[in-house]
Amino acid sequence: MIKDAIAAIDIGGTKIALGLADINGQPLPFRRFPTRVERGPRPIIDEAINELKRMAGEAGVRLVAVGVGCGGPLDRRRGLILSPPNLPGWDEFPILRLVKERLGLPVLLDNDANAAALGEHEYGVGRGLRNLVYITISTGIGGGLIINNQLVHGVGDGAGEVGHMVVQPDGPPCGCGARGCLEALCSGTSIARRAVERLVKDGRPSTLREGSVEDVTAHSVAAAARVGDELAREVWDETVHYLALGLSNIIAALAPEAIILGGGVSTSGDQLLLPLRQCIRESVKIMPVEQVQIVQASLGGDSGVYGALIIGRRALAARDA
Amino acid sequence: MIKDAIAAIDIGGTKIALGLADINGQPLPFRRFPTRVERGPRPIIDEAINELKRMAGEAGVRLVAVGVGCGGPLDRRRGLILSPPNLPGWDEFPILRLVKERLGLPVLLDNDANAAALGEHEYGVGRGLRNLVYITISTGIGGGLIINNQLVHGVGDGAGEVGHMVVQPDGPPCGCGARGCLEALCSGTSIARRAVERLVKDGRPSTLREGSVEDVTAHSVAAAARVGDELAREVWDETVHYLALGLSNIIAALAPEAIILGGGVSTSGDQLLLPLRQCIRESVKIMPVEQVQIVQASLGGDSGVYGALIIGRRALAARDA
Repeated sequence: MIKDAIAAIDIGGTKIALGLADINGQPLPFRRFPTRVERGPRPIIDEAINELKRMAGEAGVRLVAVGVGCGGPLDRRRGLILSPPNLPGWDEFPILRLVKERLGLPVLLDNDANAAALGEHEYGVGRGLRNLVYITISTGIGGGLIINNQLVHGVGDGAGEVGHMVVQPDGPPCGCGARGCLEALCSGTSIARRAVERLVKDGRPSTLREGSVEDVTAHSVAAAARVGDELAREVWDETVHYLALGLSNIIAALAPEAIILGGGVSTSGDQLLLPLRQCIRESVKIMPVEQVQIVQASLGGDSGVYGALIIGRRALAARDA
Repeated sequence: MIKDAIAAIDIGGTKIALGLADINGQPLPFRRFPTRVERGPRPIIDEAINELKRMAGEAGVRLVAVGVGCGGPLDRRRGLILSPPNLPGWDEFPILRLVKERLGLPVLLDNDANAAALGEHEYGVGRGLRNLVYITISTGIGGGLIINNQLVHGVGDGAGEVGHMVVQPDGPPCGCGARGCLEALCSGTSIARRAVERLVKDGRPSTLREGSVEDVTAHSVAAAARVGDELAREVWDETVHYLALGLSNIIAALAPEAIILGGGVSTSGDQLLLPLRQCIRESVKIMPVEQVQIVQASLGGDSGVYGALIIGRRALAARDA
């Protein structure tokens, strides 16, 4: 007998991740391929759909619903991708309609950080937790909230934008138009920018001077800090300081069981987590902060596609409702 | 036929509010009397219970469950009031056991800000909203969150402590042991303190100098600012500035449909709300902030007792479960 299965599409600026699961949520094969954004949205979605059909054939399952995760901004209800900075040319792209036309199946869409929060909550380090905050620290900083075991969308689907909490009033300008946002200080891009600013105005030697200024990344700053480069270490400490401020404010407001960090900057692991936990423990006085886990996402780059499987299951439930 | 009814007790530092509702939540008579804390907890609770019995008799109803709201810190599960600053001598007071003994009914306890959030959500200005944040600005600053129509407790019951979000890093010391918390800048006490600090170090004339320094309160600062006192106006503007920062960070994280302000300072109404909304609109860029209502609590001092009715209904449901 052919089993029913849910399909997941997680669309990122550099890769598309695909996944299947049976209708109980048991994962089946996953796959990923490079996005190659310049091809435009239709050929990319067509390739994803063909690949999902092939994967379903190989696994001997019949697709019954699809969940899609994608970088925002997007219009979840109308199923439109609006104009994500990492997907140039995808403006107002009606992804839900396209997937529905091609597969004739119920489809739901959500943003990638919400999908990742769902994924970590059901399949990852957040399993069994009632309240968690997922934060991705990458080119930008995004987030997703699970409260009382439910995803939070908020008005205008604006919930979880923790990257735009202000941690340094009158601080550096943020892409959003405000100043001193967490994203303007602690995103990968901002870490690199702060390092370059220090290199320029500061005569000290630093291994970061070895390449060109364009080669400085959050990754190279972390690596240099790890081997004792003083300037890089200052930039890293500052990153931890601002991140701790943001997370402390989230803890004061929400008291989640866990804050789960994903995205490129989080792969620094203990180099980030140990001083971050220390800093937060020192700054939050109002509640038993040691009960809040500050941990790395356990599904890595797959948090989003796992979450898209859950979104797909909801599409099925919504059809049956 | 005698109808069943829920009883509510809301314990504050200056008054006890009592209320009854039928089991569908329809409010019946309410009453309040002064706490007179010096009498100690037992006589006060005894008086409340006797009064509730009398009210039930007059209304011709039979009490079937009780909800209690009280200032924290408290141990909700064990039913203990720990050591609330506004109720000296109530340390480790087993309020649930006492009420259960006296009435033989199911009882549940929650903190006053959570109770007020519930009250405003079901009976007040938050009716019909899916996500709201209730903030009381009084001697201290507390809060309660309703997310996806559910109260949020968080780990260690720590959710909603928005008064301890840091809005001025390295700012004035807060009672919690941290620095620059919203409470350390914008509580009634902090507004008065900032005004006095300005009066001391600043030679300008101000109507606030007319009484003694001990007579300066948030209320007198607001009144002086209203009639154009320059020094008072600066203190008020600063209050709005920091409050806007805190609220903007809450909006970025949660995108609630409404932030509802209660407590003494909120009774300034438009003097607070108009510049606050303006400030928030200027600082939040990431989402349709005009969709977030910033409003005054509509049940005033009764938000908490209305919420305690809902807590009482839950006590009944928990017994029947």
